[in-house]
Amino acid sequence: MPEFLTLLPPDQARDELLSHLPAPKVDSESTDIVHALSRFTAADTFAPHPLPDFPRTTVDGYAVRARDTFGASDTLPAYLKLIGEVPMGDAPAFELRAGQCALIHTGGMLPNGADAAVMIEYTQSARITEIEIFKSVADGENVIRIGEDVAQNQLVIPKGTQIRPAEIGGLMALGFTSINVAKKPRVGLISTGDEVIDPGQAPRPGQVRDVNSYTLGALVEKAGGVAVRYGIFSDQFEALKEAAAKALSECDMLIITAGSSASIRDMTADVIRTLGEPGVLVHGINTRPGKPTILGVCNGKAVIGLPGNPVSALVNGYLFVVPVIEKLLGALPKPKATVQAKLTVNLPSQAGREDWWPVKLFPSPSFGRGARGEGFSAEPIFGKSNLIFTLAAADGLLRIHPDATGLSAGEIVEVVLV
Amino acid sequence: MPEFLTLLPPDQARDELLSHLPAPKVDSESTDIVHALSRFTAADTFAPHPLPDFPRTTVDGYAVRARDTFGASDTLPAYLKLIGEVPMGDAPAFELRAGQCALIHTGGMLPNGADAAVMIEYTQSARITEIEIFKSVADGENVIRIGEDVAQNQLVIPKGTQIRPAEIGGLMALGFTSINVAKKPRVGLISTGDEVIDPGQAPRPGQVRDVNSYTLGALVEKAGGVAVRYGIFSDQFEALKEAAAKALSECDMLIITAGSSASIRDMTADVIRTLGEPGVLVHGINTRPGKPTILGVCNGKAVIGLPGNPVSALVNGYLFVVPVIEKLLGALPKPKATVQAKLTVNLPSQAGREDWWPVKLFPSPSFGRGARGEGFSAEPIFGKSNLIFTLAAADGLLRIHPDATGLSAGEIVEVVLV
Repeated sequence: MPEFLTLLPPDQARDELLSHLPAPKVDSESTDIVHALSRFTAADTFAPHPLPDFPRTTVDGYAVRARDTFGASDTLPAYLKLIGEVPMGDAPAFELRAGQCALIHTGGMLPNGADAAVMIEYTQSARITEIEIFKSVADGENVIRIGEDVAQNQLVIPKGTQIRPAEIGGLMALGFTSINVAKKPRVGLISTGDEVIDPGQAPRPGQVRDVNSYTLGALVEKAGGVAVRYGIFSDQFEALKEAAAKALSECDMLIITAGSSASIRDMTADVIRTLGEPGVLVHGINTRPGKPTILGVCNGKAVIGLPGNPVSALVNGYLFVVPVIEKLLGALPKPKATVQAKLTVNLPSQAGREDWWPVKLFPSPSFGRGARGEGFSAEPIFGKSNLIFTLAAADGLLRIHPDATGLSAGEIVEVVLV
Repeated sequence: MPEFLTLLPPDQARDELLSHLPAPKVDSESTDIVHALSRFTAADTFAPHPLPDFPRTTVDGYAVRARDTFGASDTLPAYLKLIGEVPMGDAPAFELRAGQCALIHTGGMLPNGADAAVMIEYTQSARITEIEIFKSVADGENVIRIGEDVAQNQLVIPKGTQIRPAEIGGLMALGFTSINVAKKPRVGLISTGDEVIDPGQAPRPGQVRDVNSYTLGALVEKAGGVAVRYGIFSDQFEALKEAAAKALSECDMLIITAGSSASIRDMTADVIRTLGEPGVLVHGINTRPGKPTILGVCNGKAVIGLPGNPVSALVNGYLFVVPVIEKLLGALPKPKATVQAKLTVNLPSQAGREDWWPVKLFPSPSFGRGARGEGFSAEPIFGKSNLIFTLAAADGLLRIHPDATGLSAGEIVEVVLV
């Protein structure tokens, strides 16, 4: 039997793991920006030129010198001489002098001499070459100045940023067509257990299909890594040790999901001890599900032993595997996606233990946060903690803090979307 | 100038668009489950067999007949005859009779006759073939019965579910190795404007790079579609009409981002009117940014005209393009990822208009929702609404409801992660 002498709280266990990992040397590779969605930038990006790099209008109307419109109103318009039209996509061939204006369209380049634009709604053609202006504008009004979006050499996208549509747009606007992103960390996956078989095979009585290599593989992929599956190993110490050493040498991180028997649970910790220093850091975490989780670091690489129970394995994957992948990617911290919801029932919990409940979210018109958005109610999915379809049926996970002895029906809770 | 006779509220505009789209005929394709992450299921999935399909223990200990442990306690243990050990991954070769027990490991198959398991912690070997039991167990205790996770023929994953790691696990557990998913809808993208050039080219004064084909392409990809870029068209009605007709015939949906000039904004609506019935449904939406957005349906396909301003285009892409893609995928509704945060400043807004502000989130220890989670403060990013880097710098978008005249500093707001 594994001995859980001290069960660490999950946050402390994660800190212990991450603090023993060396600062990552993030290997990078160049990728076309059109293929860079969801990748992590490997270096700071600075603007090679200001944006915009010419002064533009933001309205349809007339480019003017602001001082020429001073005091203009409906009853006392200013009269400006129309000297031309700014062509789209080209620099105007003329310069604006005192008392002059030029027709301009949104996005058009301001002629030299102009410093503002008047919206067409506040103007009227008096004669073919004269425009009435009914509203005064300030210097810079309805105009984007050179560098108003970003200045030259400004840090625009820091290292470790996950690329979203907006970053793609920003990079494109600056003329970048490729970018260096962090290489995807390789995460080795080993399943163990005499009862575990490949999902493509038909199980005999007593056998179960290998779920964990695939749920955790998907989790790794979603977090930005590459899953490398090494297959299923039976309860043979030497064979497992050899496979683990090979996997660790080929990958940036290793996950061993334990067969369910007590003997092999011990074996995972023993195998991790053979893989390098410092070895096992945490064996047993005060959480449900997932108490028997093992966290280790061997020669600078994380090695995590997860319970064979697929729900424990996946929930603890979210808690411990994802943060390691984020560290390997050099990812900047960012808020986790959550949904606020009203709990439908009382949920008991043991003080000192952190519980993660699968919950289903239902639209709930009665809870709408000041009528400003959709409201949800959160209904815990009951069932033994090792039923994979309790997770497949869940919209998210609800955390009960170790300090709490439970949550009450009607409480507003935060559900982590998974 | 386009005439915005009636500006529809965004929710109503979206309903107008979606209600004119026919129920989607979701084309499906088969994919390996290992490659199915984030795809949408194209049909209901039923369990081909119960899960588990044999009764299993959830603890290490002894398989027993519950009635044999009745009344067992520390002071008055029950004595059971040990008749064997359940092998992992195989059916036990023996049957349990009255007064008998068998050694069993977590996940092991319960022998015939047994109906519960006693944890090893509550037992002791009395003699080689006799076990002392210190705690009574109820029928079914520490056991997962056949079908307790899912029953045979149970609906396990409904059509329109986006596949997450848990669904992959569930499908694998049931022996599926491939699944039918919705084909990715093809979304055509056309950029217009005499001033717009390909991002790979160096702009001359007055020219800007085509950002929208790429931001919206990434948005389409993220939502589960395929972006098909048709390039940049200048303000020539016939050429644009022809390109739009071709794109619409080859795609499931079309997006035209307008050049900024007034003339071409009108042109987009006119082009949409030539593409089929009913044509333009909404021209002008009471939102900031994005007022000039055009929503149309032509012969059963959505055609959306977005402003040339990259911030408007992207924000309105979230509001109108993503819901169409979800409909084409047959996606089940699901909660949007948000973060609750405390607003740092007052934000004014015009009543009746829905505003979307880019905001940056900062960890804020002072706001922690009852000390149960991380807290964030939300700081709006000010700047003219057409600066792409206001979005690249933002963690999310804050919605100001049309009914509100603004938000106050200190209010708890919901930020949509983008």
